[in-house]
Amino acid sequence: MTSEREKMTNGEPYNQFDKELISRRILCRKQLQEANDTPDNEKRNGLIQDLLAKSGPKFFVETGIEFDYGFNIYIGDNFYANYGLTLLDTAPITFGKNCYIGPNCGLYTNVHPLNAKERVADVEMAAPITIGDNAWFGGHVTIVPGVTLGNNVVVGAGSVVTKSFGDDVVLVGNPAKVLKKIDNN
Amino acid sequence: MTSEREKMTNGEPYNQFDKELISRRILCRKQLQEANDTPDNEKRNGLIQDLLAKSGPKFFVETGIEFDYGFNIYIGDNFYANYGLTLLDTAPITFGKNCYIGPNCGLYTNVHPLNAKERVADVEMAAPITIGDNAWFGGHVTIVPGVTLGNNVVVGAGSVVTKSFGDDVVLVGNPAKVLKKIDNN
Amino acid sequence: MTSEREKMTNGEPYNQFDKELISRRILCRKQLQEANDTPDNEKRNGLIQDLLAKSGPKFFVETGIEFDYGFNIYIGDNFYANYGLTLLDTAPITFGKNCYIGPNCGLYTNVHPLNAKERVADVEMAAPITIGDNAWFGGHVTIVPGVTLGNNVVVGAGSVVTKSFGDDVVLVGNPAKVLKKIDNN
Repeated sequence: MTSEREKMTNGEPYNQFDKELISRRILCRKQLQEANDTPDNEKRNGLIQDLLAKSGPKFFVETGIEFDYGFNIYIGDNFYANYGLTLLDTAPITFGKNCYIGPNCGLYTNVHPLNAKERVADVEMAAPITIGDNAWFGGHVTIVPGVTLGNNVVVGAGSVVTKSFGDDVVLVGNPAKVLKKIDNN
Repeated sequence: MTSEREKMTNGEPYNQFDKELISRRILCRKQLQEANDTPDNEKRNGLIQDLLAKSGPKFFVETGIEFDYGFNIYIGDNFYANYGLTLLDTAPITFGKNCYIGPNCGLYTNVHPLNAKERVADVEMAAPITIGDNAWFGGHVTIVPGVTLGNNVVVGAGSVVTKSFGDDVVLVGNPAKVLKKIDNN
Repeated sequence: MTSEREKMTNGEPYNQFDKELISRRILCRKQLQEANDTPDNEKRNGLIQDLLAKSGPKFFVETGIEFDYGFNIYIGDNFYANYGLTLLDTAPITFGKNCYIGPNCGLYTNVHPLNAKERVADVEMAAPITIGDNAWFGGHVTIVPGVTLGNNVVVGAGSVVTKSFGDDVVLVGNPAKVLKKIDNN
């Protein structure tokens, strides 16, 4: 039998009031609150990493991080995120290696139906977000469900990324568009 | 005699240094800090609801909520708000029933004069914000003073809503515009 | 010999793992956490002001402020900032007098190279941000590295300011553009 966690992670409609999912969210809330209240960097980062599906030895996240499950977050080595990162990890969120994320960024995988009746019936779904290697996001960047970004992508501060892009580009604006190509040779 | 609280709520110039208003803001700060530090969902939501003018039996707000007064916040039944909601409730903020609000959204009723001399003289005003039934806001949505949205409105992540809209629309962008109509029959 | 702090403040490439810089960041983290957990206004504001290069007698900042160093932040008299202000003060951030800053704003001076190889080699730089007298920022405003704004500038909620502007203007949008001139006579 497929669990609600599996359905959720696979992007299928799932029951958000499932006992296993609720208890995991409560665990994350408690442990992230402790982490965010811990100024000691090594201890704070350890408390966060404990909750993640994957993270590397070079991992540094400033205070104010929030996520729902952690078991759907995969982070490559050499990761740095500034204050106030929000990851809604109903579906998987994946970062390649060497990603640098500015303050107050949000990556949101949650999807509700546009039709009000379906939405109010609490049909919830999600679409994964995948970020390649060597990303740099400025502050206040928003990534919507289903977006994939290639390697070496720079996203300007305040941008809202609503579709997928390939490698070696600078994205800016709302909706984000290619400002220029980057020569990474 | 009209109190400063009444003037403020009515959108007239008021004195923000009024004793009653200051003591209410201090009460909210203390109680919201306690609420935001409480991982137990029932207890946290109770502490928040205690401060609101109106809220229903189905009410769930994640950590990081901030507002100034609470007595100007009216929330319909079946409300869910994700991390980091900010409500500047100098004038009334009203949500219909079944509203789902993504992380890091802000609804701001405060208005200052554009003229610098008037503004520095601390003339403060406000304009109410009213959201209909069955709204869904993505993350990082900003609503400016005076906006009214109809029923069944979906606001895309990162949008900045600077004017009012009717029922059954998806809004996106900065400034937010109608992306499409929704068939809610 | 030029210290890493001096190089950083001057906008030159610097070593972010310098001992002096690390220990200053840890001090700020601890003291700001204490400040953000202090509902008493006078005590909270005192803890913040202690860390700043300059601030005036009229100074009020709501909870949720974050910055890295403080020694690069210069704030004129009569300053008010609402919830969740983020100041990345790798290079100097300067506010004139009578500045009112809405909730969840971010001023970011940090610059990384666009080239992925250089960025991953941890070359860090910064460019100063300077805001004139009598500014009013709505909520969710983002200011990128190197921006200078003149006096009496109003920035609309949700705007992303990517270049410099002179006096007496209302800026809105992403990227922010002049919406209108303000008559300040």
